[in-house]
Amino acid sequence: MLRLNFKQMAKKITKRSENYSQWYLDVIEAADLADNSPVRGCMVIKPNGYAIWENIQSVLDKKFKDTGVKNAYFPLFIPQSFLTKEAEHIEGFAKECAVVTHHRLEMDEKGKLVPAGKLEEPLIVRPTSETIMYHMFSKWINSYRDLPLLLNQWANVVRWEMRTRPFLRTTEFLWQEGHTAHATKEEADARTMQMIDTYKEFAEGYLAIPVIAGKKSESEKFAGAEYTTTIESMMQDKKALQAGTSHMLGQNFSKPFEVKFLNQESKEDYVWQTSWGVSTRIIGAIIMVHSDDNGLVLPPKIAPIQVIIVPVWASDEEMVKVFEKAQEIADKLKEQGIRMEIDKRELRPGPKFFEWEKKGVPVRIEVGPKDIEKNSVVIARRDMGTKESVSENDIVMDVLKLLEDIQDNLFKRALEFRENNTHTIDSWDEFKNVIENEGGFISAHWCGSAECEAKIKEETKATIRCIPFDQKKENGECVHCNKPSEGRVIFAIAY
Amino acid sequence: MLRLNFKQMAKKITKRSENYSQWYLDVIEAADLADNSPVRGCMVIKPNGYAIWENIQSVLDKKFKDTGVKNAYFPLFIPQSFLTKEAEHIEGFAKECAVVTHHRLEMDEKGKLVPAGKLEEPLIVRPTSETIMYHMFSKWINSYRDLPLLLNQWANVVRWEMRTRPFLRTTEFLWQEGHTAHATKEEADARTMQMIDTYKEFAEGYLAIPVIAGKKSESEKFAGAEYTTTIESMMQDKKALQAGTSHMLGQNFSKPFEVKFLNQESKEDYVWQTSWGVSTRIIGAIIMVHSDDNGLVLPPKIAPIQVIIVPVWASDEEMVKVFEKAQEIADKLKEQGIRMEIDKRELRPGPKFFEWEKKGVPVRIEVGPKDIEKNSVVIARRDMGTKESVSENDIVMDVLKLLEDIQDNLFKRALEFRENNTHTIDSWDEFKNVIENEGGFISAHWCGSAECEAKIKEETKATIRCIPFDQKKENGECVHCNKPSEGRVIFAIAY
Repeated sequence: MLRLNFKQMAKKITKRSENYSQWYLDVIEAADLADNSPVRGCMVIKPNGYAIWENIQSVLDKKFKDTGVKNAYFPLFIPQSFLTKEAEHIEGFAKECAVVTHHRLEMDEKGKLVPAGKLEEPLIVRPTSETIMYHMFSKWINSYRDLPLLLNQWANVVRWEMRTRPFLRTTEFLWQEGHTAHATKEEADARTMQMIDTYKEFAEGYLAIPVIAGKKSESEKFAGAEYTTTIESMMQDKKALQAGTSHMLGQNFSKPFEVKFLNQESKEDYVWQTSWGVSTRIIGAIIMVHSDDNGLVLPPKIAPIQVIIVPVWASDEEMVKVFEKAQEIADKLKEQGIRMEIDKRELRPGPKFFEWEKKGVPVRIEVGPKDIEKNSVVIARRDMGTKESVSENDIVMDVLKLLEDIQDNLFKRALEFRENNTHTIDSWDEFKNVIENEGGFISAHWCGSAECEAKIKEETKATIRCIPFDQKKENGECVHCNKPSEGRVIFAIAY
Repeated sequence: MLRLNFKQMAKKITKRSENYSQWYLDVIEAADLADNSPVRGCMVIKPNGYAIWENIQSVLDKKFKDTGVKNAYFPLFIPQSFLTKEAEHIEGFAKECAVVTHHRLEMDEKGKLVPAGKLEEPLIVRPTSETIMYHMFSKWINSYRDLPLLLNQWANVVRWEMRTRPFLRTTEFLWQEGHTAHATKEEADARTMQMIDTYKEFAEGYLAIPVIAGKKSESEKFAGAEYTTTIESMMQDKKALQAGTSHMLGQNFSKPFEVKFLNQESKEDYVWQTSWGVSTRIIGAIIMVHSDDNGLVLPPKIAPIQVIIVPVWASDEEMVKVFEKAQEIADKLKEQGIRMEIDKRELRPGPKFFEWEKKGVPVRIEVGPKDIEKNSVVIARRDMGTKESVSENDIVMDVLKLLEDIQDNLFKRALEFRENNTHTIDSWDEFKNVIENEGGFISAHWCGSAECEAKIKEETKATIRCIPFDQKKENGECVHCNKPSEGRVIFAIAY
């Protein structure tokens, strides 16, 4: 049974315009998505938040399996020596990893419990699983007939973050990591693209989050990748959020891990690999793209509860009637696969409406005695805050249509917001001015040098979010150094 | 695409009668369920094994949700001080836990990578989550209106095992852990029973594993529980395997963690709690209860592939025909929700049959040119090793019926085996003799003393698996010490 937390009800959500960062935390608290834990940098994902993750998992998992990927599970711990086999990889993760050094606790002489049973080699809690997986791949792959190998793992990973924020950046987080091995570079390139396309379709089609897909610059790519592709989204504070990445690893891991195979000409070769992932971070993006000053707004396709039915009554006699009608409607909706609940609690309608609004349920149906008389119900939509009375006979079609409308509207609204806040800029002064005063995405020419990129970051905190796949060939001058450039890239300050 | 591993095909499975323990490992390898990892005591669950876990998850998850339970996610790490708050609990887990002591790696003076950034308080990788969860419960629960709180978590846990065995006992394993908090002892008692009943229904109804449900003795209960309930199953080597447990925690954790609430009389009280879990260990039970000398045998309800369709052809012309027919049949089966695949590989039928047999697919359909002429197909069942020719028109009904038959037959067979190997024993000499020479379950009187129980274990390695819920009141004498007893309990040597 759902219960009302009165303390939460009383708390007001900070306005976005007042303090965006506090608004984000308030929305999470008001919708009861997560809580801080006593473990530094780790959060607890509460049922309302976890249910969103379950829906994300179920959609993505099916998409992966449709492309031939199978799920597996690899150890949480990675021997320290494995991490160091790929130079850039250890460089990227050594500074922020949880190290297991002992395998029991025992009492010392003073009666204090202390770590004991020191391990010969420290174990690292996986920050990502390339190294442990590819060690296994080298045992499993012998011939071209064993390829492609297409695996995915749903797992927890740990990166010791210094500054954390629920969903966006936590020491432990949940994700999926896909890992594939191929006989040719072309196949690995194609798989890298296939997965970033899958993520784009998912973000836009299910989460209603418009994204720009593209390639990361050398400085921003994954530690150990040949190149990284990404989908980048814009939050309502106009900052960028990387919502998913797909890496072409080339033979960077297959060589140190000796993932070799006999090709069709019976010659030995190293496999070509990809890895790709989406994490609970994307829940942060859902919150920040769609929600408003009244709380969470969820796209219907991913909302754990799509429709909340609120019966309204005064007398016991009325209660029986409205409960019956509510159940009738619920049954009809359920038949159509709509995820719904009836809120039968003994509470006034006002607080109930308020609660479901904060929790982001896309559609609310009110059923009162007068509605029953008129053979109608009141339907309210969360995204617009509007209500209308509709005939009860049309309820199923109306709700299905409304859910679709809301889904479309959220996407359109977010796309418009992004377009309105994307600036095509050709001068360095303007660049600095926009970053400082307006924010948003900047589409600007870049010379391609890592040095120039670093200077831009140093001066403005803006980074290259991606070199869009749909980048137009256009001769221009680097916005920072004026050297020649062949096309625009997307700059922004990012989460 | 499924691929054939020729090396595996060549390897013979050890007979159960020759070496049961090696047979178990051979079955796992032949069915490609799991592999050893380079991390001490940790295994890799390969796609064929993980798919079984996914099916287990999907059935159990629905069962839990049907009883009002919601999923959430709590941190992997537990501050050392939390573990020590409940005395028996730390006693139970201190000797076998992974301890995180540092949060990065850095180069020492000799250029060697070493743990750095020492933590003020060590973190324990969760062996189970009572402590971290109940710390949070104390923040969330204030009044009787917040109760019951019914949560479950699907997660990995770590217990530093010295002797490991795939699925049965590994340092890291996957499980679900349900945790509930209630206003009264009665409610917590009822939930404890509800969950062990759920596990029993699941084990018997889906895994076709007959289980004896009962209470653990004091010595065998969970570290920190008031009492533990269990379902116990018999493997083909006649040893017992505990397949799931449900613990009534009383107020043992709510007191140290201060999980208090105001009851309906506005008086402060501590909540009553339960926790319950099933792990990947149960896959070990599935393997050991049903499989035979030819490899894995899976109950249809949990088999990732229920039906394998093997087209048989000689010429290209025949190939086109049999593929077409195979697809036709596949489409019909799929429509009925049957999980099936067509094996189109260019391999002779023999090796294909052999492979699917080892992998435990319950039903094989062979489609050859002659079958098409006769409008029939050959259906083989894995459990009995029999084949028959059936009319193609009846295929869907026949397969559905066959899957049901196999499911029933596996359960019946396992139940018969258990009954044939359960001995009602009243003398200590006979007890020792049966344990030493025959094995199996022993139903015997026990005086109820922990000392006597310990002596029995010392002398025979047999433990009390459970005091069955359906224990008959029967006056007798303890099989070991001859003191009075009111009923029989189940003894066995256990995994």
